[in-house]
Amino acid sequence: MGKECGEPVTQIHCRPKMTVCELVDAMGKAGAYNGGALYRAVGIYESMLRDKKATKFFGLAGAMVPGGMGGIVTDLIAGGHIDVLVSTGANLTHDIIEAIGCHHYHGSAFCSDVELRHDEINRIYDVYLPNDAFEYFEGFMQKVFSELKPESRISISALLNHIGRRTKSGILHTAAKKEIPVYCPAVQDSMVGLQYWLFSQTHDVTVDAFADMPVLMDRCFTAQKAGALLIGGGVPKNFILQSMLMTPNGFDYAVQLTGDRPDLGGLSGATLDEARSWGKITEEAQAVTVYGDATITLPVLVAAVMERIHHG
Amino acid sequence: MGKECGEPVTQIHCRPKMTVCELVDAMGKAGAYNGGALYRAVGIYESMLRDKKATKFFGLAGAMVPGGMGGIVTDLIAGGHIDVLVSTGANLTHDIIEAIGCHHYHGSAFCSDVELRHDEINRIYDVYLPNDAFEYFEGFMQKVFSELKPESRISISALLNHIGRRTKSGILHTAAKKEIPVYCPAVQDSMVGLQYWLFSQTHDVTVDAFADMPVLMDRCFTAQKAGALLIGGGVPKNFILQSMLMTPNGFDYAVQLTGDRPDLGGLSGATLDEARSWGKITEEAQAVTVYGDATITLPVLVAAVMERIHHG
Amino acid sequence: MGKECGEPVTQIHCRPKMTVCELVDAMGKAGAYNGGALYRAVGIYESMLRDKKATKFFGLAGAMVPGGMGGIVTDLIAGGHIDVLVSTGANLTHDIIEAIGCHHYHGSAFCSDVELRHDEINRIYDVYLPNDAFEYFEGFMQKVFSELKPESRISISALLNHIGRRTKSGILHTAAKKEIPVYCPAVQDSMVGLQYWLFSQTHDVTVDAFADMPVLMDRCFTAQKAGALLIGGGVPKNFILQSMLMTPNGFDYAVQLTGDRPDLGGLSGATLDEARSWGKITEEAQAVTVYGDATITLPVLVAAVMERIHHG
Amino acid sequence: MGKECGEPVTQIHCRPKMTVCELVDAMGKAGAYNGGALYRAVGIYESMLRDKKATKFFGLAGAMVPGGMGGIVTDLIAGGHIDVLVSTGANLTHDIIEAIGCHHYHGSAFCSDVELRHDEINRIYDVYLPNDAFEYFEGFMQKVFSELKPESRISISALLNHIGRRTKSGILHTAAKKEIPVYCPAVQDSMVGLQYWLFSQTHDVTVDAFADMPVLMDRCFTAQKAGALLIGGGVPKNFILQSMLMTPNGFDYAVQLTGDRPDLGGLSGATLDEARSWGKITEEAQAVTVYGDATITLPVLVAAVMERIHHG
Repeated sequence: MGKECGEPVTQIHCRPKMTVCELVDAMGKAGAYNGGALYRAVGIYESMLRDKKATKFFGLAGAMVPGGMGGIVTDLIAGGHIDVLVSTGANLTHDIIEAIGCHHYHGSAFCSDVELRHDEINRIYDVYLPNDAFEYFEGFMQKVFSELKPESRISISALLNHIGRRTKSGILHTAAKKEIPVYCPAVQDSMVGLQYWLFSQTHDVTVDAFADMPVLMDRCFTAQKAGALLIGGGVPKNFILQSMLMTPNGFDYAVQLTGDRPDLGGLSGATLDEARSWGKITEEAQAVTVYGDATITLPVLVAAVMERIHHG
Repeated sequence: MGKECGEPVTQIHCRPKMTVCELVDAMGKAGAYNGGALYRAVGIYESMLRDKKATKFFGLAGAMVPGGMGGIVTDLIAGGHIDVLVSTGANLTHDIIEAIGCHHYHGSAFCSDVELRHDEINRIYDVYLPNDAFEYFEGFMQKVFSELKPESRISISALLNHIGRRTKSGILHTAAKKEIPVYCPAVQDSMVGLQYWLFSQTHDVTVDAFADMPVLMDRCFTAQKAGALLIGGGVPKNFILQSMLMTPNGFDYAVQLTGDRPDLGGLSGATLDEARSWGKITEEAQAVTVYGDATITLPVLVAAVMERIHHG
Repeated sequence: MGKECGEPVTQIHCRPKMTVCELVDAMGKAGAYNGGALYRAVGIYESMLRDKKATKFFGLAGAMVPGGMGGIVTDLIAGGHIDVLVSTGANLTHDIIEAIGCHHYHGSAFCSDVELRHDEINRIYDVYLPNDAFEYFEGFMQKVFSELKPESRISISALLNHIGRRTKSGILHTAAKKEIPVYCPAVQDSMVGLQYWLFSQTHDVTVDAFADMPVLMDRCFTAQKAGALLIGGGVPKNFILQSMLMTPNGFDYAVQLTGDRPDLGGLSGATLDEARSWGKITEEAQAVTVYGDATITLPVLVAAVMERIHHG
Repeated sequence: MGKECGEPVTQIHCRPKMTVCELVDAMGKAGAYNGGALYRAVGIYESMLRDKKATKFFGLAGAMVPGGMGGIVTDLIAGGHIDVLVSTGANLTHDIIEAIGCHHYHGSAFCSDVELRHDEINRIYDVYLPNDAFEYFEGFMQKVFSELKPESRISISALLNHIGRRTKSGILHTAAKKEIPVYCPAVQDSMVGLQYWLFSQTHDVTVDAFADMPVLMDRCFTAQKAGALLIGGGVPKNFILQSMLMTPNGFDYAVQLTGDRPDLGGLSGATLDEARSWGKITEEAQAVTVYGDATITLPVLVAAVMERIHHG
């Protein structure tokens, strides 16, 4: 047996009433492919959350809030497990929609989109969002924006904090309450952005695209250690990883849950090893990618880590 | 709100010590993408296992035994939850290797395959199998084959049953003990097959490629109802689904766990709806595909179903 | 034969010296899977480019410039085939790097990223970019930014135009020359953005995140017809498609080349049919998605369309 | 610039009337991701076809004949470029269907499969096959099988050769004419197999599952060099690669066109480097994988190689 061989693969046996962490531990003893990677992700994320010195970043891409994953993000913020959140604008839009009492609905991906159009339903794979949610959203957003100080200049995170202080639940609300910054570099690229464009036609408040950078960069320069949980790729992944590029530091912990693939060259699917060549993550960083749908891997990851943290 | 809208999406909250089924139920209330599909798969597989009238097929493709999923298959057979198993030859090869006391080992996918070659280690993504396992395997297989009746004609499932009666654990052993047929249409396409070729150079036993068909087809014609759990695609998926093609019946339950995708046209990634057009599954069949790595989705599925069946 | 059946599938025969369009036409007669989709994409993109009334959008996501696809984009701009370009910041960064005389290099994805780090090489899958390119880049960018009017407020597209007027080749240069707007909603999320952050530490120029919206929205409201070629997903795809959301219009032509998949729920992999439910594309829009790596599908698409347009 | 850096990436420029090989050469100068891989695949396949000492294997998996790729395979056989063909049973079924004058038709993947069922149309993603083709097929196959010598024992390749000598075009016909063996280890797993099962109910001809192995293995032991073009994975890929396992040889050339991915552990998506650890391909073998849909990559590959071979 070669020196390269680690532990033997242990065949999995499922028992009734297994807890999520027990099942993940069994996946770890099997140790193969993405099941093995998920076990390692649980270990890395547990270490990251237990590490008092580590600044904890969370990247949120993909239609995660319409898919019901927003509750996990909210709970992680409330639990003190996220220090910096970077999100797509779409996730924040859908977070606000739920926070103001509207809902997303179970639907089907195999349907007539033209019929849905006639019935004023917007589709996100198999999730349906009726148009009237956007009408409530417009009313709410215009009111919230109208409370911005006239002729001021504001950062994107301050704009989002302003919104979060006016919702009563959800990601933006909890982040505002906990004073956690939410960065959304492409905020224009969302319904929040389109509503802001509407508002800006009659109001003069400047959203400064770069105003968030100094605070974020200072934080990266001064962080003793840093870790990142990345859901999907896109702007959140790149923005988080690049934030260490100008510093002598790098991420010490990194877990990525993605359905993308590396061979297409895009950053979204790039391995975390690739990030080592750039110095975005340190040479010694604990890092793992779990390929698959985050609507499965994220709940399993977080449930297992919560079990470990609250019972160990 | 349009008539097309089902239940509202409920945001997931993870609690410490959640059981697997509790987490899957939360995924179901979120209801989106592959997390929602996994919840539906649990429901369909539960119904299928509870249905006394249903003949239960299991298709096993992909390197599932080296990845530690063989234990789940063995337990399902032992528990009476599989009536017909269709496997690739590779999974059976690796099942025998473990049954005779050899092991697969944790390794890494990022390595030098030339070095592994020099160190006599065979790689299956991040699982390592030292060459000496194949030496034991050769000794075992040649001995087992030598006990076949000379100048006889044998079906593939009889050949596999013959092996299973000579192992002491694992899939083939348990199937033999429970008298569950194991079909492996492409048995030549595996180390079992290569060993048989070695044996056949000095012995005259004919493995009849079609000898298993009459029994299987009779079973399909007489089945009151039928269900299939398909892990991966390949020959097992196609062979199971086509078995209903010549009958007036079709599968009433079908769950597919796959990492393939439909748009490439291949049967492995084809949707189960496509199978309705052929009549392989019935028009009313409960059917769902969960896209992702079966080293995650299979343990979650089976743990959740076991929890439901043993507590309800 | 059912009424649902179209033309018969014609088996492909490859001849020496076939032109790209001849091969694509053969794929169209075969008509299946992504080969068939690519043929349809050629037809739609040809119609879009020939339609004098159509405003032509181009979305550029994924590491396309490091992968050598920037030349195609430059040529399309030069040829008058792009009216609005939306890009990730990374593609523009790499465009500038090449425009100032630095190069990306052929490398390998199977390597030691720690060694690359030691040798100051940044990896993008199998493309290598030495660190010194970023040193030249820094010098160039700081000089260019220093020429901005002090204490002014500028839009992102004006900032990019400012850069493009100071490069001598490439996408930004050609766009500036042709007066084509380049939108990059998440410009902070790139090396261009990090350089701007450096600059902003000692200079007071405000980049207004929303200043591009009025011009873009006016264009969308007044467009007689509109078409989009989308390479990858991310911000460019979403920003282009959402731009029609507030208007009574929608895209009449849409071609998407992507390696993503729909079942994960994210916008990047979403089908263009999904976009019909939102009204982003019209009910009658000609639209097709070709799944695969754009380093193959984009050159084939554009070479075939150029052949048709210049010979018909 | 590090020693790891190869040639600079050259941006692609598409010209009207480019030949396929000219475009592939441009992809090679870009050199990135799957476009770069496709260029290398063209070079390897060209070398393999030019190498008089190399035995040339071709693996055919996925629904390639319904997708119109059968013509390319037929032409390669006719041109002397395939010495050993390994196929799924499904591709041979569809080859026979076309050879007896039936057709596959252009359809849509977005349809009601229940309606298709009512209209007796079988769907293969976006290809439709009316049921009556299978009625003709049944008549033809039963007649052909009835001409088998009673009470004989036959190998699978002999059975397929028997069929090929009774068709007038296509893969099986051309292979029979050129005396190229066609291996189909899982022939039972196809409509050919189901027809044979029907026939076997009233006739006694034994199809010996292992009868093809001695000839194939002799060929592998005596091959001076060997090369493989693998379309998709499944049994054809594994059966070809394993054929060298028992010999001191390995494949010297290997090109794989696949839509599968490595991280799921299955052999279909496994890298060719993984095959080096097993000794299936030699340590020095020229090998490359192009990820994508073979309905695009196969025509481009073969058209480019034909151009090179017939003009160089």
